[in-house]
Amino acid sequence: MKNFNWPIRIYYEDTDAGGVVFYANYLKFFERARTEMLRSKGFEQDELMNNDNIIFAVRSINVDYLSPAHFNEQINVSSEISRLKKVSLIFEQSITRENKVLCKATVTIACLDAKTMRPKVIPPLLRAEFQ
Amino acid sequence: MKNFNWPIRIYYEDTDAGGVVFYANYLKFFERARTEMLRSKGFEQDELMNNDNIIFAVRSINVDYLSPAHFNEQINVSSEISRLKKVSLIFEQSITRENKVLCKATVTIACLDAKTMRPKVIPPLLRAEFQ
Amino acid sequence: MKNFNWPIRIYYEDTDAGGVVFYANYLKFFERARTEMLRSKGFEQDELMNNDNIIFAVRSINVDYLSPAHFNEQINVSSEISRLKKVSLIFEQSITRENKVLCKATVTIACLDAKTMRPKVIPPLLRAEFQ
Amino acid sequence: MKNFNWPIRIYYEDTDAGGVVFYANYLKFFERARTEMLRSKGFEQDELMNNDNIIFAVRSINVDYLSPAHFNEQINVSSEISRLKKVSLIFEQSITRENKVLCKATVTIACLDAKTMRPKVIPPLLRAEFQ
Repeated sequence: MKNFNWPIRIYYEDTDAGGVVFYANYLKFFERARTEMLRSKGFEQDELMNNDNIIFAVRSINVDYLSPAHFNEQINVSSEISRLKKVSLIFEQSITRENKVLCKATVTIACLDAKTMRPKVIPPLLRAEFQ
Repeated sequence: MKNFNWPIRIYYEDTDAGGVVFYANYLKFFERARTEMLRSKGFEQDELMNNDNIIFAVRSINVDYLSPAHFNEQINVSSEISRLKKVSLIFEQSITRENKVLCKATVTIACLDAKTMRPKVIPPLLRAEFQ
Repeated sequence: MKNFNWPIRIYYEDTDAGGVVFYANYLKFFERARTEMLRSKGFEQDELMNNDNIIFAVRSINVDYLSPAHFNEQINVSSEISRLKKVSLIFEQSITRENKVLCKATVTIACLDAKTMRPKVIPPLLRAEFQ
Repeated sequence: MKNFNWPIRIYYEDTDAGGVVFYANYLKFFERARTEMLRSKGFEQDELMNNDNIIFAVRSINVDYLSPAHFNEQINVSSEISRLKKVSLIFEQSITRENKVLCKATVTIACLDAKTMRPKVIPPLLRAEFQ
């Protein structure tokens, strides 16, 4: 699955009294971008849950904050699947503003059975698109 | 039900680049205070949902923002039930910092059937405590 | 100023354990839409603050919650300036999903001096666009 | 500096439509606990900024999500400074519910000059308390 780009605008809700984006809110941006990446491949997470009994859960995240984003800026979230395992996958994501990298993340996502919340093998249809 | 007070500390997460609490976040504080007011009377909302099939939903809110709260301040949320109807109730809430009123809200809450999400008569046990 | 429409996607960050959008988060959507309405007229709020010493602050908001929005839905925020006063203006905003109104708000915004935080007459250039 | 514990209650605002705490919100809890740990030693971050020209900024965070927290639960955030360097420090933090570990984080914090936002040596008074 190729690198996927998703533009995001910074609103007041994203910033804090330090004048920059609050550090937890970058995780919202990363999540939005992963959701849109799936959507771009035809996968809607509500349908995956209701029809296929699948949900994705974050198992771990490593974030490096290099330079802050500010109110009203337009940023880009770049997302790529770097590794595809049997029941999990790893995303490499970065946030840039005009080619300057602001923030980088490595995110491990587990595929879970939506009812039991136990690990579930990633279905072939998804696997084919992720590769 | 008498006036109920709940103290809240302002953290970075609550503020925005204007240096003050973001206007939507006061609604979080009001909600926390309503939850704690119920708890102080022995009602836990997860038990009300799971055991009594009841959830509370906000139907309307009017908020007046008089003066801003800032990072690191300690504020107080005061809550009172001003009107108790058959399937809904009205809260009068205000946020103060050392006797200065920062924000006031009138909040209408509906009692709903947790499964059908339709209006449900407030059970006698709750009604008795709310009066 | 004509009715302005702004589409918004609901992500996990916007929802709560009730399965619907958390009531405070609609205020984020309303704020994004007001910001984009200003931008559509050529006004950037960071420039208004830095170059013109102007900030806008919410003075009051009345919200009616009619029907909930859910995870992954696409909604529309409609915004209109219903009244333009000397130092404040009133927005009528509503959130719809495929023509069904989910939420309505009346929002009073004050124009403030960014340094003193005192009321400031809305400058002619802004006034002209708002009318 | 000894292990510091800070209790936190989960409200609707913290959860998402998956029925659990949204993954970004644990970072809010970790930040609250670091702020309270500093406060317990007599350091207020607004005073550090205004009087001592110091702010703390997160440089990196590694989070392992082991088990979810749910609406209305009471959790504990445990925080410890594991390493104290010249211009930065490392926190080991974990979130537990009745002795079950839900989430663990390693957080690198930089000490910055509040005006220039450049690295600043941690002042002796702070250093003495952190050790």
